[in-house]
Amino acid sequence: MKPAIDFWFDFSSPYSYIASEWIDALAARHGRPVRWKAMLLGATFQVSGLQPPANFPLKREYLFRDVQRSAAFAGVPVAIPESFPIATQNAARVFWWLHGQDPARAVAWARSGLRAYFTRGVNLSDPAQLKALCAEAGLDADAAEAAWNAPTWKAALKAANDAAIAAGVFGAPFFFIDGEPFWGNDRQEQMEAWLSSGPPKGL
Amino acid sequence: MKPAIDFWFDFSSPYSYIASEWIDALAARHGRPVRWKAMLLGATFQVSGLQPPANFPLKREYLFRDVQRSAAFAGVPVAIPESFPIATQNAARVFWWLHGQDPARAVAWARSGLRAYFTRGVNLSDPAQLKALCAEAGLDADAAEAAWNAPTWKAALKAANDAAIAAGVFGAPFFFIDGEPFWGNDRQEQMEAWLSSGPPKGL
Repeated sequence: MKPAIDFWFDFSSPYSYIASEWIDALAARHGRPVRWKAMLLGATFQVSGLQPPANFPLKREYLFRDVQRSAAFAGVPVAIPESFPIATQNAARVFWWLHGQDPARAVAWARSGLRAYFTRGVNLSDPAQLKALCAEAGLDADAAEAAWNAPTWKAALKAANDAAIAAGVFGAPFFFIDGEPFWGNDRQEQMEAWLSSGPPKGL
Repeated sequence: MKPAIDFWFDFSSPYSYIASEWIDALAARHGRPVRWKAMLLGATFQVSGLQPPANFPLKREYLFRDVQRSAAFAGVPVAIPESFPIATQNAARVFWWLHGQDPARAVAWARSGLRAYFTRGVNLSDPAQLKALCAEAGLDADAAEAAWNAPTWKAALKAANDAAIAAGVFGAPFFFIDGEPFWGNDRQEQMEAWLSSGPPKGL
């Protein structure tokens, strides 16, 4: 098996959601596994000095339009959530809790969470809604709640954030292919070309 | 003739440079003229509260890599200038001065300026280098210098900045196709699809 593609995402990132719908298929076309990694953009923003794009009214307005357009071009359904952005540490801790059992279950949860938030407006920052979503996703909701409150999975998410920062991640989605960084849903085409033919001529 | 595509750029924006190398061909494939519009990103940043990406070390490092990679994928030569970013008001005023005579001459100047800065590191913020470049581009260099110091062309650039802000421009390159905003060199594919088929299904 060829080396994995790293896929860093935040449950509150709409471009991560769109990318989550194509990354596995893209990787599979090139015989690559994908390592999904939940993190908190807020942690990377603290280090980089950046702010969420939605903090800036002009960028926020464009972002909403661009997300809808980019999703439509990708054939991915989307509805901008009423609450945006939201805190996602609990959803991310559930991801790492499941990851400790089986990475494939963590990926299935990531899809459930991203789709619920970005197509039905399920507010992942609300414990009651998150717990209901866990049950809907076939998880033991009480165990999930215990996990997002447990020091172990708080520490696991903290470690993931630190690893993201150490790798140079400052936005989401953020990918690495054999060490090469690609930031954004809009780097899909370059990633595909890189996986097919390596670095472009002249680089 | 179908309605023009608006193309807002800053002489110090590397993604504007890459886009400047494909926008006319893209527009021509769809029977569209292009209205090139020089502006100062700094003016839009003041209004939007944003900062240049190069102000953030992590983003700056990624930007340099991504510009080189994106240029290579587009088949456009590039060399990251030693001084980056730079003040570009004089180059932009020369643009509007020429635009007052003939928009095509202004576009030719825009190409000269962008290519000189992004392939040979000619520092457009240095009056001596800018004047030499004007001469090289076939302009009357003394007249160009007089133009970038003249209240008329200072006011013309100010009016362009104000028009950019009024249109919602907060970055570069920034395009409008029939009122639809597209931000970034990386929206080329969406623009091509939009020009061919209009809005994607589901938007």
